[in-house]
Formats: sequence, structure tokens, C-alpha cells
Amino acid sequence: MINLLLILSAALIGRKLCQKIRQPVILGELLAGIALASIGVAQLTQPVQFIADLGIVILLFSTGLAVDFDELKRLGKPSATIAFTGAFFPFALGYAFAVFSGFSFLQAFFIGSVLVATSIGVSAEILSEARMLKTRLGTLIMGSAVFDDIIGVLVLGFLTGMVGGAIIWEETILLVVLTALFFSLSLFFVTRIIARISRFIVFKTENLILLGLIITLLYALLAKHIGLELVIGAFLSGLVLGQSRYSRDLLENISVFGESFFIPIFFVTVGMQFDISALGALGFASIFLIIIAIVGKISGCFLGSIISRLNTKEALVTGIAMIPRAEIAIVITDVGLTTNLIDKSIASSALTMVLVTTLITPPLLTKALKRLRGNNKNNFN
Amino acid sequence: MINLLLILSAALIGRKLCQKIRQPVILGELLAGIALASIGVAQLTQPVQFIADLGIVILLFSTGLAVDFDELKRLGKPSATIAFTGAFFPFALGYAFAVFSGFSFLQAFFIGSVLVATSIGVSAEILSEARMLKTRLGTLIMGSAVFDDIIGVLVLGFLTGMVGGAIIWEETILLVVLTALFFSLSLFFVTRIIARISRFIVFKTENLILLGLIITLLYALLAKHIGLELVIGAFLSGLVLGQSRYSRDLLENISVFGESFFIPIFFVTVGMQFDISALGALGFASIFLIIIAIVGKISGCFLGSIISRLNTKEALVTGIAMIPRAEIAIVITDVGLTTNLIDKSIASSALTMVLVTTLITPPLLTKALKRLRGNNKNNFN
Repeated sequence: MINLLLILSAALIGRKLCQKIRQPVILGELLAGIALASIGVAQLTQPVQFIADLGIVILLFSTGLAVDFDELKRLGKPSATIAFTGAFFPFALGYAFAVFSGFSFLQAFFIGSVLVATSIGVSAEILSEARMLKTRLGTLIMGSAVFDDIIGVLVLGFLTGMVGGAIIWEETILLVVLTALFFSLSLFFVTRIIARISRFIVFKTENLILLGLIITLLYALLAKHIGLELVIGAFLSGLVLGQSRYSRDLLENISVFGESFFIPIFFVTVGMQFDISALGALGFASIFLIIIAIVGKISGCFLGSIISRLNTKEALVTGIAMIPRAEIAIVITDVGLTTNLIDKSIASSALTMVLVTTLITPPLLTKALKRLRGNNKNNFN
Repeated sequence: MINLLLILSAALIGRKLCQKIRQPVILGELLAGIALASIGVAQLTQPVQFIADLGIVILLFSTGLAVDFDELKRLGKPSATIAFTGAFFPFALGYAFAVFSGFSFLQAFFIGSVLVATSIGVSAEILSEARMLKTRLGTLIMGSAVFDDIIGVLVLGFLTGMVGGAIIWEETILLVVLTALFFSLSLFFVTRIIARISRFIVFKTENLILLGLIITLLYALLAKHIGLELVIGAFLSGLVLGQSRYSRDLLENISVFGESFFIPIFFVTVGMQFDISALGALGFASIFLIIIAIVGKISGCFLGSIISRLNTKEALVTGIAMIPRAEIAIVITDVGLTTNLIDKSIASSALTMVLVTTLITPPLLTKALKRLRGNNKNNFN
């Protein structure tokens, strides 16, 4: 409980400071976590980690609730385009850089893979704080982030297969089929059932939140079972419940519920896992990896956005929002290390890339959004 | 996470059923826990237990917020009177019964001790649901429950000392002095500081809840450190923050926050720890212990209430509200077992007493409150 107390206090201080200097609170939470870990006072105990996992699930649930589903459907094609170009560019750049530097084919594939997937949590939190989730651009970014996450899971599957000897195509196809089933059943079948139930059964606020948490946990676990990330299930459950009469009440209450405990704990614990000392010993490879991660994602998403008829400022916002890498990059690094595909120095470079991309996104995106809002000629917002 | 999902689902079902039959939701949560444990599907993992502990802390925090501090001060003397008579009667009856049945002095002291302390959580939850916390009677009951809990901790200290060879009076006096210091410093010093700060610093809802949780965790840990229960610190922190400008906002939000996740998890896990099969094999000793527990507490509190000029219906409500035994009785049983003071059959009788007193209180109290409200001549409500 002392650990929890320290983490909550650090989160509150980080938040208040960031509000003072007009930065998104997530930056304060991440930095608070880094500070806690550097001082070495708080530990990541199992219960705290559990609460943090609930935090990211609740965050994506409320993001799903906030997003307009009909809009998201209309934006399916541009979302997929942006996710694809945004995943392909950093992969290709990373792969080319690695081959050029003399790495093996498999190692180069690893370095490309680690650069692919955006951390959906960071983008969701900043967009939510900037009240962007109800806009077309915010919806588009969330759609792209979800597609991007699925691409990331597929790439992770490919990598694991190749390290193990061969890609198991049956598994890949099964994953794609199950994902498609999961989404279509939820959105066109479960949605209708819940919308109908919501007309008959009224819940008090506390029971409604409880119901929302039950459904989102169920969805998160289903997603995990299929082979996707917990957060994808949580986002989907938000979309499903967002179509019901509960939507408005749930959204208003669940975001306060999450932001007052679970979500700050998640971001502080993310910060606690960063090794800040790595920044002091930045090698050439790390710097290059970071540059590729940022430039690759921005340019890839920029291209996809322009193809989808966004203007340049909107395309830039989309690219910046997709910069942060975290969960999947960390899992991929772990796979690389445990299978001896890469050595500790490459792993350390990859984790430094995660740290830097996650930390620079909040201030960069806030700035880009301000510029966008100053501009009245945007055709997408 | 599957355990959590099961517990939350059981809690929601139990709640909705109890609302249907107009019983307090806590009964549904306890029964849901018993059902889960009987089926054997859900397990009490460490993270779930941690969240349950937070649940009881948040419950007592919001109870402290809801109680009127000035009223509580005025009711200090009657609260102490009721707590004392309500603790003495069951102790004396239990002790006499045990000596009469041929138990040793120390064993008789154990049986008396296990009957002393009320479970503050059950009373708090029912009073809160019945919107009684703002009334004089509700304030009086909470005051008595807090005094009662402190008496329980002292008795536990005596018992541990006697089992170990001798009561360490220095420790007892230290505990009393520290408790008095803790309460007076908080209520007359910290209260003023926070009331002053609250005039300058404004918090958004989510940050206010976060601040409340930080302060209540700090207080709960301080209480534990002194030797009291976590819940006493949590209640005290509620009283302290209740004197500030944050009071109203906090109370409105923290109870929804707690009731939508933490508090139901607490009561379901309490239910999960009961061994329902013990009810099937009720021996003479168990039945006698249960009767003494109920009759002793009601008559003791009744006497104290009459001395404090409550009418008979109010005195009965007070007595019933104080029936449930849980945390301290369980700790005392544990001490008795590990020091070989008692055998498994006595321990099992004690735990059956905990189960029955906890389960019968919600329906009994709801009924007594209805009768009280039907009566317009009450001079204390």
C-alpha cells in the first residue's frame, strides 16, 4: 500500500505541475514515474501492476465510448490506409538501415518490426485530454491506431514464427479470421442486443459503471484469448456500449472513474519501467533508431493522410499522434532477447526508442493541435 | 483478471436481485461471494485481495466524509457509553458461558474477546445505503462503532499479551496515548491546515478524488503503524477532509467511485471467505455463541442507548447496527489458533458466529429502520 501511496502522490504532483506549464498531464505522470524509479523508493508490486493493466483497459474503453461509431465506419478506408503506410515506412527504413549496417536478415526484420506499432494508450489519452475524440480527425486517428495495433500483432506473429523456423500461416490466417469475426459479431450483433436491453433495464450510476467494467473486462479477455492486445477488446467494448442508451451516462462517469485512479497509475508505472540512464549513454545506433522511428512514422502517416485527402496540418497531427511506441515494441524486444536473436545493446536501443517516442509525443502533439486550431481552413476537423 | 470478472459479475447480479426484493445490496454481495466460493470457480488472488482492502478503506473514508463532525463531537459521550456497554455485555456473557462450560480462564477470555468488536464496514454500508449517515442516530452509531473498534484492538492486545505470558501495559498505554494524539492532532490541527489550503487550491474532479485517496491511504497506513485498524485511519481522514471546502464534491464523487468497483469487491471477497458448510454442522456451542453474540450486543447497546436518552426504537436500531462481527474477531481467532489456545472446533464456532452475525444484520437493520421511520415520536432522529 505504501507503493500505491507513492505512485498516486507522484501522479498528482506530476499532473498539477504539467497543468501549470500547460502540458498534457500524461507527460507529468510519465515523468513522475521516471522520477520515482530513479529515486528508487517505489516498487512495481503485482497488485499495482494489476491495477495499471486495468487502467489501460479502462482508458481504451472510455475512448471507444467517446468515438462516434458511424463516423468510424465511414472512416474505415482512410484509417486502414494511414495505418498501413504508417507501419510500412518505419519498417522499411529500419530494415534498410539494419541491412546497411551489416545485420542479418532476421535481425533486420526484428529492427523493422520493433518500429511498427503505435502505443494506442498514449494517443488515446492525449486526444481525450484535448477533447479531440468527438472530432473527425480524432476518430480517424483512433481508427488508424486500432488498425496499426492489429498490424503490430500480425508482425509480432511473423517474427515469432521466423525465429522459430517458419511462419505458421495457419495461425496468421486464423488470427485474421477471428479478429474479423470478433469485430463484426460485436458491432453488428452484440451492439443490437445491448441497445435493446438498454431500453428495458435502468441502472444506477454505480451499477452502470460496474456493468461497463464487466463488459469491458470480458471483451479484453476475449481479445487476449484470440491473440490480440487487451486494449483492442476494451476499445471494441466501448464502441459496442457507445451504441446503447447507456452511452452518455457511462462516458461521463467512466472517464472520471478511470482518471482519478487507474489511468494515472498506468502511466506512472509505464514511466517507472523506463531506464533513464540509457539516455546518458546514447550510442549512434540508438539515435538513428529514434530518428527512424519518428521520421518513419510521421512520413508514413503523412503520406496516408494526404492520399485520404487531409490537408498538410491535419496530416502532420495524424503522424505525430502515431509516434509513440510501447507495448508491442517491448514484447518484440523481449522475444528478440529470449531467442538470442539480438544482443543487449540492440535491446537497450529499442527500449530507449520507446522511452523517447513516448515522452516527446505529448508536447509535440499539443503544439501541433494548437497550430491546427489556429488554422480555420482545415477541411477535416 | 478472470477472477475479477467473476467477482464483479456476481456482485452486480447479487445487487440487482437484492434491489428487486428490497434488501440492502450488501446482503446480495455477501451471498454472491458465498455462492462463488461454493461453486469453487473464483479464487482470492493477491491483487483482488488488495483491491478489497482498498474497498473497505474507501468505504470508511466516505463514511467519515458523510458524518457531521460537530454532531459527532457533541455525541462523544453517548458514543463512548454505547461502545463500552455494547462491548462489555457480550464479553461478560461469553466469558461466563465459557467458564460455566469448563473452559480455562484464558480460553474463556478468548471467547469473551472474540465477541467484542463490531465490524464497522457492514454498519457503515447499511447506514450509508439507508441515507442515515447525516442523521443524529447514524452519527451516534458510527461514533460508537469507532470507539468499539478501538476497544476491540485493546482487547486483542490484552489477549495477545496474556497468551504470551503477561500483558505489556507499556504497549497498551502507548497505544492509547498514540491514538489520542492521532485523533486530536488530526481533528484540531490537520483539519485547519487542509481547510485553509482548500480555499486556495482548486482541483478538477478526478484530481480531487486522487487527492482524497492519497490522504486516506496515508491515514490508513498511519493508523496501522500505530497499531489500529486501517479503517479507523480511513474514517478519521474522512472527518478531516469533511471539514474542508472539498467536502461536498468529494463525498458526491467518492461514494460513486467506491461503490462502482472497490466496495462491492470487498463484500464479495468477505462472502468468499465464509465456510457455508459450517452452517450444516451447527453444534450446540456454535448456536450458543451466536445467540450470545446477538443478544449480548443488542442488550449492551440498548442499555447504553437508554442511559444516553434514546427511545426504545432508536436503542434497538443502535443495538442491531452493532451486531456484525468480522475483522477483529477473525484476527483474534487466528491468534487463538496459532498459539494453540483454542482448538479447531472453537475456531470454527467463532467463524460461524462471524458469518451469521454479518448476514443477519442487513435485513434486520433495514426492518428496524423502517419501523423507526414509521414512528414519528422519535426524539433522536
